[in-house]
Amino acid sequence: MSGAGNMAAGGGPAVGSASSPLVAATPAPPFDIVRIAHVELGVADLQRSRSFYEQGLGLVVTRADANAIYLRGLEERGHHSLILRQESAGACLRLGYRVRSENDLDAAQRYFAAKGLPAEWADTPGQGRTLHVTDPFGHPLAFYASQQRMERRLQHYGEYYSAAIQRIDHVNLFAADLQSTHEFLAGELGFRTSEYTDTDEAAPRLWAVWMHRKGNVHDVALTNGVGPRLHHVGFWVRGELDIIRACDVLATTGWRAALERGPGRHGISNAFFLYLRDPDGHRIELFTGDYLTCDPDFEPIGWKLDDPQRQTLWGHPAPRSWFEEGSQFAGLQPQEPLMPVKPVVAR
Amino acid sequence: MSGAGNMAAGGGPAVGSASSPLVAATPAPPFDIVRIAHVELGVADLQRSRSFYEQGLGLVVTRADANAIYLRGLEERGHHSLILRQESAGACLRLGYRVRSENDLDAAQRYFAAKGLPAEWADTPGQGRTLHVTDPFGHPLAFYASQQRMERRLQHYGEYYSAAIQRIDHVNLFAADLQSTHEFLAGELGFRTSEYTDTDEAAPRLWAVWMHRKGNVHDVALTNGVGPRLHHVGFWVRGELDIIRACDVLATTGWRAALERGPGRHGISNAFFLYLRDPDGHRIELFTGDYLTCDPDFEPIGWKLDDPQRQTLWGHPAPRSWFEEGSQFAGLQPQEPLMPVKPVVAR
Amino acid sequence: MSGAGNMAAGGGPAVGSASSPLVAATPAPPFDIVRIAHVELGVADLQRSRSFYEQGLGLVVTRADANAIYLRGLEERGHHSLILRQESAGACLRLGYRVRSENDLDAAQRYFAAKGLPAEWADTPGQGRTLHVTDPFGHPLAFYASQQRMERRLQHYGEYYSAAIQRIDHVNLFAADLQSTHEFLAGELGFRTSEYTDTDEAAPRLWAVWMHRKGNVHDVALTNGVGPRLHHVGFWVRGELDIIRACDVLATTGWRAALERGPGRHGISNAFFLYLRDPDGHRIELFTGDYLTCDPDFEPIGWKLDDPQRQTLWGHPAPRSWFEEGSQFAGLQPQEPLMPVKPVVAR
Amino acid sequence: MSGAGNMAAGGGPAVGSASSPLVAATPAPPFDIVRIAHVELGVADLQRSRSFYEQGLGLVVTRADANAIYLRGLEERGHHSLILRQESAGACLRLGYRVRSENDLDAAQRYFAAKGLPAEWADTPGQGRTLHVTDPFGHPLAFYASQQRMERRLQHYGEYYSAAIQRIDHVNLFAADLQSTHEFLAGELGFRTSEYTDTDEAAPRLWAVWMHRKGNVHDVALTNGVGPRLHHVGFWVRGELDIIRACDVLATTGWRAALERGPGRHGISNAFFLYLRDPDGHRIELFTGDYLTCDPDFEPIGWKLDDPQRQTLWGHPAPRSWFEEGSQFAGLQPQEPLMPVKPVVAR
Repeated sequence: MSGAGNMAAGGGPAVGSASSPLVAATPAPPFDIVRIAHVELGVADLQRSRSFYEQGLGLVVTRADANAIYLRGLEERGHHSLILRQESAGACLRLGYRVRSENDLDAAQRYFAAKGLPAEWADTPGQGRTLHVTDPFGHPLAFYASQQRMERRLQHYGEYYSAAIQRIDHVNLFAADLQSTHEFLAGELGFRTSEYTDTDEAAPRLWAVWMHRKGNVHDVALTNGVGPRLHHVGFWVRGELDIIRACDVLATTGWRAALERGPGRHGISNAFFLYLRDPDGHRIELFTGDYLTCDPDFEPIGWKLDDPQRQTLWGHPAPRSWFEEGSQFAGLQPQEPLMPVKPVVAR
Repeated sequence: MSGAGNMAAGGGPAVGSASSPLVAATPAPPFDIVRIAHVELGVADLQRSRSFYEQGLGLVVTRADANAIYLRGLEERGHHSLILRQESAGACLRLGYRVRSENDLDAAQRYFAAKGLPAEWADTPGQGRTLHVTDPFGHPLAFYASQQRMERRLQHYGEYYSAAIQRIDHVNLFAADLQSTHEFLAGELGFRTSEYTDTDEAAPRLWAVWMHRKGNVHDVALTNGVGPRLHHVGFWVRGELDIIRACDVLATTGWRAALERGPGRHGISNAFFLYLRDPDGHRIELFTGDYLTCDPDFEPIGWKLDDPQRQTLWGHPAPRSWFEEGSQFAGLQPQEPLMPVKPVVAR
Repeated sequence: MSGAGNMAAGGGPAVGSASSPLVAATPAPPFDIVRIAHVELGVADLQRSRSFYEQGLGLVVTRADANAIYLRGLEERGHHSLILRQESAGACLRLGYRVRSENDLDAAQRYFAAKGLPAEWADTPGQGRTLHVTDPFGHPLAFYASQQRMERRLQHYGEYYSAAIQRIDHVNLFAADLQSTHEFLAGELGFRTSEYTDTDEAAPRLWAVWMHRKGNVHDVALTNGVGPRLHHVGFWVRGELDIIRACDVLATTGWRAALERGPGRHGISNAFFLYLRDPDGHRIELFTGDYLTCDPDFEPIGWKLDDPQRQTLWGHPAPRSWFEEGSQFAGLQPQEPLMPVKPVVAR
Repeated sequence: MSGAGNMAAGGGPAVGSASSPLVAATPAPPFDIVRIAHVELGVADLQRSRSFYEQGLGLVVTRADANAIYLRGLEERGHHSLILRQESAGACLRLGYRVRSENDLDAAQRYFAAKGLPAEWADTPGQGRTLHVTDPFGHPLAFYASQQRMERRLQHYGEYYSAAIQRIDHVNLFAADLQSTHEFLAGELGFRTSEYTDTDEAAPRLWAVWMHRKGNVHDVALTNGVGPRLHHVGFWVRGELDIIRACDVLATTGWRAALERGPGRHGISNAFFLYLRDPDGHRIELFTGDYLTCDPDFEPIGWKLDDPQRQTLWGHPAPRSWFEEGSQFAGLQPQEPLMPVKPVVAR
């Protein structure tokens, strides 16, 4: 198992060394991002999508109006971690991040405006003062320090159902210029790297990278590919059995076709995973099994691109759709990646 | 979900009706079979195979001599449920059944001898008086009423490892003449049918059938195909997490290539399953999730061949090897099936 | 761990030996009992009890009329395994057994009538031809060969809730004359003994005994005590997590006071258990973890009364109520046991 | 369920309000604590203690010398999270915290020295530059920014055993002057409060408080009582079944008497817990089930002292030992608490 071997060896060249493509997190970012906090997805049919997320997966509906539905996980006290909006079906509309304070919000506005990037105040139900920006790669982002506090359902066990999703955990993005996107997120905004894949070349190039602010494996991961596109939204569940139960429920309540990949376990992140496609094709990951990364001397764990246990510690090979398909961001034309994508070889 | 629909409807035509290919279990078999009790497999390298079953899967070694290793599960008090013998590598050497009493053993001897079939007394370590026969289809069988009693390890939890296999549960056989094999096992030997698959024809033909003596879903199952061959030996585990733990262990201790299919859940039998190939290619199923069938008014549950949830309530499609490969019985040339095997179509 | 030691040693004196109080199962009982099949309990408030069993524990309601509610587990295809009747609140009204065939039913009628015991035909919704008898100790019993077939809910995973009870498994009875009750059930009716507790005397006396017909640890168990009374009805669940989930649900939906003992694990039977008291005080066990006992050479596993791991392999000591309280049978005055009950000593 | 009710209502008076005894975390602590990182315990017999933690619980031994053993969990890449030292048996020798950087370490030295408290540089195998201090209440603390990096065992699944402990999570301390201790940790050092218990008085007094730096429920919790003493060290496991498996293993490998309380679930923190006593009486908690607390608008969850589900959402009452016993800190005489401890009433 070469991946384990890599880990044992400590992950190859040190971050920031001449031979590493990894960029260290800046210790002094212009504003303090706490974590990924919500994702907004465009859907064709609100009721069908609500059925998938509420009846199929066990998310809690906080608010439903004519154009949008706001959902959250069972442990979440904030208003929403997922917004479904009836427009631009199949597109990802926005990624939302928590920042530390209102001051951080103002600093973020100044930061993006100084770069000449769109940065405007916006209103979204359930969120405090909110800044909408477009980052240098075209990702539509929201930043805010607070959400309306809702009753958490953590101890309302009578309402647990299917996957019993607890909370949003991360987003995974296809990046056409992965190195630059990583450098922006780590070097500028202070995301720390937990794991990465690079090529087996004399001067290795980054193929994929997992970065976080909140102290576990990721808030945002990047994969080389036609991008920017959203590969998936990851939701955290309590354990492997909650994922098995979700398979049982989905397969016998009309959602069998939603299962795209898994269950299985990734080498990277150690995630026990299940990938689903929602009614508009948005990809959802249910996962459990990652670990703490908050120590200051944490060294990123490196994997080689051709390590078969990187992607799949065990499990069936991923289907072609999993490698190739993703949700475009509304109004943003994705580009071919700078590094050619290898043909998928099932193992 | 058509399979569930079938079940709801009670499984189609009644057993024994003109339009059903199922044969009812004779209420008065010539001798009383209790359950499948062991399988004997030919292996090329005893130590490699021992490592797979003991270190990889957590079976307990009862006895090891120069030519054979005898293993059992954690709840089993009998001497063995699996014999690995260093001869005819890749072949299945014998299937062993418990009978009710020594009298049943004598009755079995008379029954097979009267049919002109080989039926001879034999010695096997750890078994009481043992009858070896060849049934009308060529399967080499052993019958015995007792095994040497060993200490069960059920409450030796410090020794639980990987799948923590509890006991043998069933064998699954490819049958070239499935209807006749079923008629022999049910009509002659008293096996009761729990579930079956038939074709969607005016006069449906049996495609596969699950039969038992011990009161759960199966001791022996038959699948239409090049046969007789052993498709797999099924071992019972306590729950889904023991199978996930086995995947984790196998994938990180050198046995990743042994995983052939799963985990997933069958519609038929409701089994949560994992299929493995041992070092000689013998297929092992780890499973959990079936149910009681001992009621006298139990009616077999029917599935149609083209029901996608019959094979896979959920999970990745089975690979071609799973449909086509199996262990031959030593010295027995398998035949093409009477019903042509449909090409495998992944769903 | 003396219990494990006992097991290792094979359980002490052989059944039927001069020094053993165990009676072997008669190989030729007058009629063939398949398994325990239902229990009928008297309740004060049908709706409150329905809420406990349906909303609290996840049983399925098959039928509800003015005076009674009929429930079943998720794998059960028969009409009911539990009847709640609004009369004689707190009393057990009847224990129901499946027999092999209609002929066995007639044989049962002749058997009890010949003993001068009440044995009359009765009608119960959802049951086939039914015989009501009173056994020599006063237990009101029902025998029948069939139940109305219902749709099983085994693969209706969207309806799984709380404990997701699969099926009835056993009843446990206080017996005032335990030795005679055991001799009747084993010597007359053919129940086989799986485990037992006896005293540490030169001539050991039976303290408790677990007996079965269906091939697992028990259909009926007897405990020395003021009897006849019903100690508990045991329902089978898929695994330990279903019991943990039931605790979570019950504790947060108004049924926290129903938890009487557990979760923990018994030495005897290896059951992972939770004991509940329903709104009328009837005791329900949720359990998982026993094993097959169908082999003809199965030898009962013996435990000594003072082995602390007999009752509790691990877990908190049982409260006094668990040792002392039970449901009386309607109209039957329980008697003091022939063997004095030791004071409860928590360990 | 009043606890859930409290949570629904948002936890009572706002932090820092006139009527709340809670103190908000200072946003600018003198040095940046990352998390609790290790505990050092005095033991009488190194080999016996090693057996308990390694063979009983599945911790990994990093280093063993004549006087001490260093252990870590399966996901931990640092050198140790537990040190067992053969001196002052039964005493807690030190609590170790990670700080963000070497600069923070120097700042910590200046901070404690300025207060006139002992603050000296020390050497401990496997730790980087280390500061030993005594805090105002007498707790012996270690601070360091780094540990020697070891191979993590996260994906060495073949070595998982018993509880398969992943990492240290928190310490729980008896505090004689709980309000002052809380004010020091929150107001001075920047610990944030996740949950708390206060009295049902017009001016509520803090009874217990859960505080963290790393973004889950706690790094350190305080309970009113004879103190300072260590109530327990909490280790994190993957799920409820790992705790059940630990019970099974401990109970059948000679450590049954180590189980003090549980398994059960706390209302506070939502922890599914098991409390053990090691060979010297040190209390260990295995737990799983808490939640993220990193949002800046997180509001502490309040419970009233007389809420029965605060301590025990469900489960047997805690024994008296759990309320009263703890490990003294070496050389430090504990004091009676300022608030009298209520007699324990089992519920």
